[in-house]
This record gives sequence, structure tokens and C-alpha cells, in this order.
Amino acid sequence: MLSCYHRSSKIQRFGDNRDCSVMSAVKNVCIFGGTHGNEMSGVCLLKKWKDSPGLLKRSSFETKAVISNPEAVKLTRRYRDCDLNRSFTKENLEAKLTADTPYEIRRANELTNMLSAGGEIGPCQVLIDLHNTTSNMKMCLIHRNLDKVVLQMIAYVNSKLPENDCRNLYRTGPVDHATDLAPYGIGLEVGPQPQGVLRDDIMLLHEKTVMHCLDFIELFNSGVEFQSTDVITYQNVEFVTFPRDSNGEINATIHPSLQDKDWEPIKSRDPVFRLFDGTVLLLSDVVKMDIKEGEVFYPCFVNEAAYYEKDVAFFLTKQTQISVPALSTL
Amino acid sequence: MLSCYHRSSKIQRFGDNRDCSVMSAVKNVCIFGGTHGNEMSGVCLLKKWKDSPGLLKRSSFETKAVISNPEAVKLTRRYRDCDLNRSFTKENLEAKLTADTPYEIRRANELTNMLSAGGEIGPCQVLIDLHNTTSNMKMCLIHRNLDKVVLQMIAYVNSKLPENDCRNLYRTGPVDHATDLAPYGIGLEVGPQPQGVLRDDIMLLHEKTVMHCLDFIELFNSGVEFQSTDVITYQNVEFVTFPRDSNGEINATIHPSLQDKDWEPIKSRDPVFRLFDGTVLLLSDVVKMDIKEGEVFYPCFVNEAAYYEKDVAFFLTKQTQISVPALSTL
Repeated sequence: MLSCYHRSSKIQRFGDNRDCSVMSAVKNVCIFGGTHGNEMSGVCLLKKWKDSPGLLKRSSFETKAVISNPEAVKLTRRYRDCDLNRSFTKENLEAKLTADTPYEIRRANELTNMLSAGGEIGPCQVLIDLHNTTSNMKMCLIHRNLDKVVLQMIAYVNSKLPENDCRNLYRTGPVDHATDLAPYGIGLEVGPQPQGVLRDDIMLLHEKTVMHCLDFIELFNSGVEFQSTDVITYQNVEFVTFPRDSNGEINATIHPSLQDKDWEPIKSRDPVFRLFDGTVLLLSDVVKMDIKEGEVFYPCFVNEAAYYEKDVAFFLTKQTQISVPALSTL
Repeated sequence: MLSCYHRSSKIQRFGDNRDCSVMSAVKNVCIFGGTHGNEMSGVCLLKKWKDSPGLLKRSSFETKAVISNPEAVKLTRRYRDCDLNRSFTKENLEAKLTADTPYEIRRANELTNMLSAGGEIGPCQVLIDLHNTTSNMKMCLIHRNLDKVVLQMIAYVNSKLPENDCRNLYRTGPVDHATDLAPYGIGLEVGPQPQGVLRDDIMLLHEKTVMHCLDFIELFNSGVEFQSTDVITYQNVEFVTFPRDSNGEINATIHPSLQDKDWEPIKSRDPVFRLFDGTVLLLSDVVKMDIKEGEVFYPCFVNEAAYYEKDVAFFLTKQTQISVPALSTL
């Protein structure tokens, strides 16, 4: 069981200046859409909210929405030069920018400046980043924070959406995502939706979730006390790669019994790939880790289009329960 | 009802030198995969068949398979410079090529040369072009020919696949597709599959259909007589465009009652779009043509990713029945 106050240098961008115990009201929220330019529900929600700004209005805080990767949106591509959502590294944000600097690294710097004191947007306590996946994940709340503001927000959103429509993924790893730009960052990853396609059901689920996040912040700011609770989250334990032939070419499909089955339990002897020659590969055939007899995993990002280039066929996660302390504004 | 011998300059590339009455055996078949580089089941089937060439072998004819747009396949994009599958125009194929000529126009010329007498592949009577769509179309056999070889092949494939898994689309319009390179061209369009993703079910349906095509040709060559029959096909009557705001930006989703409902009948008063402001648009609100009371249409390519840039939200087709005369080799 993870604690809210779990800390490691890896999971904090705001490590030194964020303090879980500071529970003052949230004054500024920022929403990014189009961090990946072919993930259409974020892009289109921003357009919708631009035309109907009242939808984002709440009495106790201000929300600004930004197309985070306008060049990629223009191209309807994930990115122009490199993945913006891996570009917010300390190294990139300290680099000297030149005309040859890849567009997304320049944009990561621009966005960082926009969110800084005196910047066009200014510092935000909460950053919501809108994403789509081709995987059948429904709504997935991606958090790297384990502090109680984010976790109580997650618990609140979970309580508002049907159980099978909403899961939580605890992201660890490098500090390089857009959501690392604010103390309370959350990614809203929803699918299945093909790249470059806008689906009504996906856009609706995306918007509902954002509204629940904003409603939570409004309640929090108004002094509502959120009781201590538990949150079920999933944590990646291995990126499972595609089988490849001796030329390095993918020579398998995701097995039909795994395709579209994000979040459904799998064990060691369950099929996960079918080689083009018909051979079926089991989970135990392909993972690097040792699996115990009867151990249960939960796959997600199964067959996500954007992860082919990262050689990730699916995430293998473990379910974990987090205790979240009660929360109220000071 | 259309006749096999229906002719118009629009529907023939091989108009002057193709003759429906010449029913000699088929000697050469060519299969294109990767005409669009992010339509993965064609790309991967070619890899599979390269590793297991026996799968394409038949006793009476030769089959060659070609990655038609290798640069787009490398990029996992529909195309590098322009849509290869609109590049086989007379104008492009007669143009003087320079270093500035878009890649796909150069490639259209290369492929045309490869399929010419003395070319790397040589002339083929049958060209099968493998495509994927993000739309829920299942297998769609796209033909622009109305001669009895193609129509009997379609009737044969239809008889081998479950009815709901296979429809036929009679394509008219410009002569510019890869399948226009051979007297008997057929496009195998299968979905739903996101761009850049390989699904086991889609690859399987694609391969099965190719096998049925090859089996048909083998039977035809062996002298089997195919009885006269009828084929149900769909013919596009209007490309329905997306609703847009005054800035030209899309401001609607495909209505959930139409999304994924390719080939299901729709009428004048059925909803087809939902504007971002909630307004529902009916079919009669958005089509240019006059619709008669009770007239039935069949949508396809509903929300196809690649057609956003062509401003096509879906095809509106009419069902038609074609009488196909009996067929046998001379």
C-alpha cells in the first residue's frame, strides 16, 4: 500500500517546493489540449470551450485552456519533430535554444515560460492534460503525484463515473511530461479513439471528466472536507515489447484474447501475442520479470498506435490501493 | 439495375483495350500492400507472405506482392508528399519527372513501369490493393469495373464470408487509383482499425479475403463455370461534409446513432451530426441532394480518419443490384 506522503526524487518535478501539507485554495487551473496533435477530443474540447467559455467558469478559481502543440495540431500528427510530452526535461528546459532546436523542445520552453510568474498564463496549481489512446482504456486518470489533493480529486472523479469507465494509472519514471509543469498534474487519457478521429462518446467522456475535476476544485475551495478514503490505482511494472524477427520487424499481432481487454486481469499462462506463423505466445513467454504462480496483472495501453515507435505493445500493471488522508482547505 | 456491360468513359482506365468478352485465363496477379503507409494489415500481410511464400502459390497463375508506398510505410503515414492512391492520373503518368516531383507521383510512375511489359513485375490481369479504414466497415470490396470477371470474383468472395462481414462498393469518379493499373482491379478495404495499428481480427479478415480471391482465380483458370448471378453493391451518391463554423473549423461530432453504423440504412430524418453546442443535425439538414420521402441510404466510411483532410464525414450510398452473366474461360 502506498502512502500519500511517499516521496522519491523520481516522482517529483516540484520536489523541493511542493509541500503536501499546504492545502490552500486553488486559484489557477490550466488545461492542455493537443499535446499530441492527432488526439482529437482534447483539441476539439478546447475549441468548444473557446466558443462557450462559461462551461469552464467556476466561482472560486480561474481556468485557462491552451492548445499545447499547435504545430502538431495543424499537421494532425502526434508531433512535428519529437514527442512534446517527453520534452519537459530539466535538460531541455535549461538548453540554449537555436533555430535548429526541435520544435517541441522550443514549445516546451515556451509553455514553461507561459506558466511561470509573469508569463502569459502564470503559475497554476492544477494542470489537466487531455489525451486520447487507440486502446480500449475508457477514462484513465494518470497521476504521478501521491499527494492528497490529486488523490482526493481522483477519488472524487472515480465516484462520479461508472466503475468500468474510469481507472487510475500511477505513472513513475522520468520527469518530462506536461503534467510535471504544475504541482497537481493529471493526465486524462481516454479511448479507444483512432488518431485523427473525433468520436462523440470519447469527447463526451473527456468533457464529463474535466467537469468533475473542476467541480472537485470548486468544492475544495469552498471548504468542503473530503473524508479519508482509499483509491485503487495501477502501476506499470513492465513495458511489454513486440515480438520481432531477425530483421527487427514485428512479426506478431496482439492476441485476440488480449486485444481490447485493457484492465482485464491476466496471468502467466494467458496468450498475449500470435506470431504471423500461428504460434501463440503466453505472457510468461514474453515478459522479462519473474512471474509468481497465480500472480495477477492488468494490461493497459494494449495496442496503442503511438507506442509502436517506442516498441511498447502494452503496459503490464499491478493493482495497488492507496490510502488518502482527509482533505480540506486550511 | 446495372448491367455488366455498362460502360462510360469515367469508369474505365483500360477502356479502349479491355474487352469484357475476352475471358482467357489469368496468368499474373499483383497484390499491393502499404499504398497507404499507416494501413497496417496490408503491410504486415506482405511481410507474412514474404516469409511464407507458399500461402500465395496457386498452380495456374503467379502472384507477386509489392509494398507500393515504401516511404510512407517507413514513416507509418498515409503518404509522404501526397496520396499515392489518387496519383495514378494520366497527367501524372505522362509528366516529366524532376527532383521536385512529389514522391508519390514518382512512385506512381515507377509502379506503372513495373507493371508494364518488360517491367519488374510485368502486366497483371488482376490487381488487389489492400487497405484499412478506421470506419466500422468490415470487409468492403471496392470495384470500379462492371465486367464479369471482377463481379463473379466479388460474388464468389461474398459467398465465402458472412454477410455482415462483407459488402461491395462500386467506385466511380476519376481514374487515379492503384487498382486502375490492371484490367481487373479490386480494393480490399477493411476496418475498423486505427491508423498505425495492427489488429489480429482485421489482418485475418484481410488475409481470408485475399485467399478467396486467389481461389476464385484458380477455379476460373481451371475451367469452372460460374453461373449467372446477382450482386448487391453500393454506389456513392454524395460525400457528406463536416459541419464547420465561420472560421472553417469542424464544430460537430458524428452523431452516436451513426458512429460505427456503416452499412445500416438511414433516412432523411435520422440524426447524423451533433454540433458542439448540442444541436442535432439530421441527414436532410446536411445533404445537398433532394431526398424523397422514405428514401433509404447506406452510409459507409463513417468517420474515416484519412477523409478529414478531404472534408468527407461519410459516404452516402444507395444499394443497387447488378446482374452478372455466367463466366468461364474460353
